[in-house]
Amino acid sequence: VKPVVERGTAPEGRTTIRVRYPETDRMNVVYHAHYLVWFEIGRTELMRELGCEYAALEERDGIFFPLREVAAHYHAPARYDDALEVHTRLEAVGGASVRFSYRVVREGAVEPLVTGFTEHAAVGRDGRPCRLPAALRRRLAGAPEAP
Amino acid sequence: VKPVVERGTAPEGRTTIRVRYPETDRMNVVYHAHYLVWFEIGRTELMRELGCEYAALEERDGIFFPLREVAAHYHAPARYDDALEVHTRLEAVGGASVRFSYRVVREGAVEPLVTGFTEHAAVGRDGRPCRLPAALRRRLAGAPEAP
Amino acid sequence: VKPVVERGTAPEGRTTIRVRYPETDRMNVVYHAHYLVWFEIGRTELMRELGCEYAALEERDGIFFPLREVAAHYHAPARYDDALEVHTRLEAVGGASVRFSYRVVREGAVEPLVTGFTEHAAVGRDGRPCRLPAALRRRLAGAPEAP
Amino acid sequence: VKPVVERGTAPEGRTTIRVRYPETDRMNVVYHAHYLVWFEIGRTELMRELGCEYAALEERDGIFFPLREVAAHYHAPARYDDALEVHTRLEAVGGASVRFSYRVVREGAVEPLVTGFTEHAAVGRDGRPCRLPAALRRRLAGAPEAP
Repeated sequence: VKPVVERGTAPEGRTTIRVRYPETDRMNVVYHAHYLVWFEIGRTELMRELGCEYAALEERDGIFFPLREVAAHYHAPARYDDALEVHTRLEAVGGASVRFSYRVVREGAVEPLVTGFTEHAAVGRDGRPCRLPAALRRRLAGAPEAP
Repeated sequence: VKPVVERGTAPEGRTTIRVRYPETDRMNVVYHAHYLVWFEIGRTELMRELGCEYAALEERDGIFFPLREVAAHYHAPARYDDALEVHTRLEAVGGASVRFSYRVVREGAVEPLVTGFTEHAAVGRDGRPCRLPAALRRRLAGAPEAP
Repeated sequence: VKPVVERGTAPEGRTTIRVRYPETDRMNVVYHAHYLVWFEIGRTELMRELGCEYAALEERDGIFFPLREVAAHYHAPARYDDALEVHTRLEAVGGASVRFSYRVVREGAVEPLVTGFTEHAAVGRDGRPCRLPAALRRRLAGAPEAP
Repeated sequence: VKPVVERGTAPEGRTTIRVRYPETDRMNVVYHAHYLVWFEIGRTELMRELGCEYAALEERDGIFFPLREVAAHYHAPARYDDALEVHTRLEAVGGASVRFSYRVVREGAVEPLVTGFTEHAAVGRDGRPCRLPAALRRRLAGAPEAP
């Protein structure tokens, strides 16, 4: 996975979520697996802002982004009804893969609660790896589409 | 939905599940929506015992059982790591619908924690209602298949 | 559960949610149990608007609203990335219970996808039924607090 | 985190789970976050076999194991109703932390579907790091308790 953009110019987005009751567990904090769902919301909204609605990618273009890898570090717990920001960054777009990084913070805060990344393969309807169309790659890079 | 069997002879099954950590919430009890998932496990295992594997119904026969209705009463809470029994009963098989009832108890206990029922439409791959094949209806009724 | 308000004046609220990827299942629609989570979001936001933040009720006042009963009717499926509205109505406030009803629609639509209700006991930190404080009951009724 | 046992003698366990309908998504495979829940089931059952019931650790001893880090690699998808094995290994027990690794395979298969690890802090009821009692460390190491 080769980064298409230099550090500092990678597309970034921010989306807000509120912690739901069933996302807490009996330790009175958010159960760790739910952050992976919030990572998904982060990249979905970032892609929407970049003009690449993920639902359309699947339905119209037949391109899917199954996970190849995920990692997360847990720094501090979130709690019920907290308003959280998911900061998402498109770290790299390869020929047939994409990589995002995430930082979840309490609204308006700087200290991260959780940080992580995901790496995705690009596959077609047959489940086999497929190259990202050039137009899509340009859009994901935050660059304007060629005329 | 017309019951195909008299009361007392409806197919029944029992399956055991153990409460998972993320199924608890910060009230230190099982979050109510998870019982609907256990209802699903109950009917899946009952159908397997009756020779109607639900996965095969979908994949081979193209028959799906989406929910039309659910109701549940909560009598007492379940907690983390509890071993529970889901008692499932096939209450009725109609021309294009099925109805199950459920009773969740602590292992070996009689007093129910949760009781409920679900009613399902039978639909084909196109999402439209479809009649249950006669052979399937006989099998769901716990009766032997006709020769 | 005795209705405190005549029909037509019960407090109502509307909140918007977007369908998340893991809320879909292999039938390519929303799995039925997730609507119960959205019902919860609906009543949480309605109570917030009425000045009764549910998190504070639990933490400050030691009042909890565990479910006693739920029912839902499924009229039409929702799909990935759909923007949905949850219309919530506080149907009744009893001495030690509350009842909400719900209608989930596609944004801007009228036809309901799912309708349902929940009934909750009011319990204290010890898990035993407790009477709702009069001030809380007035606030839940949408009425101004007494001076 | 210093490994207490040489490679090859670390305690290992195997537990079986069956893929539930709501664990699938519209790609017709298991949604990636659910593997983290199965990792949890894997370590819970391994600890039970080692005589350290996790529920009792929390309730009786006031010791909790919140996540500090997780990573997972996705090699191949699992599907609805698959019977899977979670192979769990207690990789290391430190003074105030534990580390597990996981391998999820189809029943009887060798090729992993997903591999991963989790690292946990040990904290007390006050949420602050606590040293693992010596007796617990010995038991987690699979070694007999001292007389």
